[in-house]
Amino acid sequence: MISTTTSSSVSDIRTDVLIVGAGPVGLFAAFEAGVIGLSCQIVDGIERPGGQCIELYPDKPIYDIPAIPSCTARDLVDRLIEQCRPFEPAMHLGQRIETLEQLEGGRWLARTDKGVTFDAAAILIAAGNGAFVPQRLTLDEAATLEGQYVHYSVSDADIFAGKNVVIAGGGDSALDWALALLPIARRVTLVHRRNGFSATDSSVARVHQAVAAGKMDFVIGTIAGLHASEGPLESIEVRQMDGSVRIDADQMLVLFGLVAALGPIANWGIAGPAGRISVDTSYYESSRPGIFAAGDIAAYPNKQKLILSGFHEASLALRKAYTYAYPDKKRVHVHSSYDTKLAERVAAVHA
Amino acid sequence: MISTTTSSSVSDIRTDVLIVGAGPVGLFAAFEAGVIGLSCQIVDGIERPGGQCIELYPDKPIYDIPAIPSCTARDLVDRLIEQCRPFEPAMHLGQRIETLEQLEGGRWLARTDKGVTFDAAAILIAAGNGAFVPQRLTLDEAATLEGQYVHYSVSDADIFAGKNVVIAGGGDSALDWALALLPIARRVTLVHRRNGFSATDSSVARVHQAVAAGKMDFVIGTIAGLHASEGPLESIEVRQMDGSVRIDADQMLVLFGLVAALGPIANWGIAGPAGRISVDTSYYESSRPGIFAAGDIAAYPNKQKLILSGFHEASLALRKAYTYAYPDKKRVHVHSSYDTKLAERVAAVHA
Repeated sequence: MISTTTSSSVSDIRTDVLIVGAGPVGLFAAFEAGVIGLSCQIVDGIERPGGQCIELYPDKPIYDIPAIPSCTARDLVDRLIEQCRPFEPAMHLGQRIETLEQLEGGRWLARTDKGVTFDAAAILIAAGNGAFVPQRLTLDEAATLEGQYVHYSVSDADIFAGKNVVIAGGGDSALDWALALLPIARRVTLVHRRNGFSATDSSVARVHQAVAAGKMDFVIGTIAGLHASEGPLESIEVRQMDGSVRIDADQMLVLFGLVAALGPIANWGIAGPAGRISVDTSYYESSRPGIFAAGDIAAYPNKQKLILSGFHEASLALRKAYTYAYPDKKRVHVHSSYDTKLAERVAAVHA
Repeated sequence: MISTTTSSSVSDIRTDVLIVGAGPVGLFAAFEAGVIGLSCQIVDGIERPGGQCIELYPDKPIYDIPAIPSCTARDLVDRLIEQCRPFEPAMHLGQRIETLEQLEGGRWLARTDKGVTFDAAAILIAAGNGAFVPQRLTLDEAATLEGQYVHYSVSDADIFAGKNVVIAGGGDSALDWALALLPIARRVTLVHRRNGFSATDSSVARVHQAVAAGKMDFVIGTIAGLHASEGPLESIEVRQMDGSVRIDADQMLVLFGLVAALGPIANWGIAGPAGRISVDTSYYESSRPGIFAAGDIAAYPNKQKLILSGFHEASLALRKAYTYAYPDKKRVHVHSSYDTKLAERVAAVHA
């Protein structure tokens, strides 16, 4: 729920537009904000800009960006970062907006999970399919053990020292951590649902070598249960084609990859169908004036999940955002070819 | 007005979508049509693709095409032509749609001024600010003399042979024709409102040389009247700072450049404010089902004349057009990265 508050402190970062999401649409929004004279700040839960494009298919070609016959997602993101460089948008990465409150007078106070606060005239949510979070085990007991015995990322590798460690997953993260923990763990067991990995060849080869040399165990199957009758994790049950096996485990590291989740936005009172945000097609504004949505997260009749649609939606949203940031100014549309200030900025960056 | 007819002959070009306008939005529409499985044909009044971009500011930089930090209008058009190449859209240039009739069953029959006819399931108008037509003299007598004695383009230079020719204008076309007609005309007089030209240096130099050598006359002033009391053109009155002069003339060639005009579209019963076409923002469809508009010619609340908006509008319009072309098929959205047919087509062109 969005609450109303009067608190805004000097430590808050004051900006015209807070852009939630540093994917292609968020990055282009940062450029477009600069063009029309709005300051902005960008927040994204991932540690690098690019969003879903970079997380899910960095090297896949994209063919339907207008005037770019073919590019990879990585190229696209690099181009968009280059394009918004003249406006040097500040990016707050690896964090996400946890709370959002409306200030008296209509501005918004947003706070990230790392304690950064923003005082913004408008919010543009370009969060794609939502924040990416690790895919968790669906076992009830996993939730109880999470944090102390079951982990979805590694913040301190020392907790695995001298322990029986089970690592679940078959991607690069799982293999890399299995190899990285070999020297410090008592025993590393890699569990994956099939006899094959989705990882770089060299990592796969090194895992095969370690297993062949008897330094690591590899078990094929799915995680069926966690045993921890005394409190700490004791063993893990792995279901296999012909029954199940139990593996001694003190610590478990689950690396099933990332999944999209709307996250705290779901609690802002603006979530629409399927966790998306319903907006009008005049300015792509949500039911809360001052909160806009563009890109895949925006929902409206006949919405198409095309990146090029997000560019259009963000551009129109920012024009309305301008009226919240500068209610007394009239913005005049200048074709970019005749915008000499813009030309100078772009030239300065590319010189 | 749009009339209804049952006539559709075998010589009509049958297509899913007829795209009116070969500017950036029309070109991208041709690509997008191909992606979603629609055939298309493009018509444009200008002899080359590119539309207003190429006619008005080919070398000006454009900064606000997403993921292209800077490009000229010419670059942009080249890129879009390249992008739609896998689908080889047929272009009918140098002609414009003069008549449009709806066939029984809902399809459209369109005919260009050169007699090419199309039988299309849908029409997408991406005509920018309309067709470009020569700027005409605003004198009443000019309309009467047009075609026989007053010309806005040259289709047969022989009509100027041995004649006193007045050429009005100060751009490249005016100077080029003044120089080209020197050897065949009895006398060439160039009339321009100021002592200076907007033309390439070499043409300007050659005109100055011809005038200095007494081979051509140059008169500064504006066209104030045409005298043709007996029928044929006799003389032209040119208003100057300190009065006016009269110049003997048998033929007159007016080359004031091109101006935008909606043209026959204005008579299709769908023209909205300022000669634009009112559309909804769900599918950018006009009040006539099956006729869509995208780009600068489309009018809806808060419309921004951004090229990127035209890309979005065309993409959505084509999805509805698909339902007219294939009412019984369900189109499945495939992300371009996973569209193997598209990948093969693009690869074939770029190989």
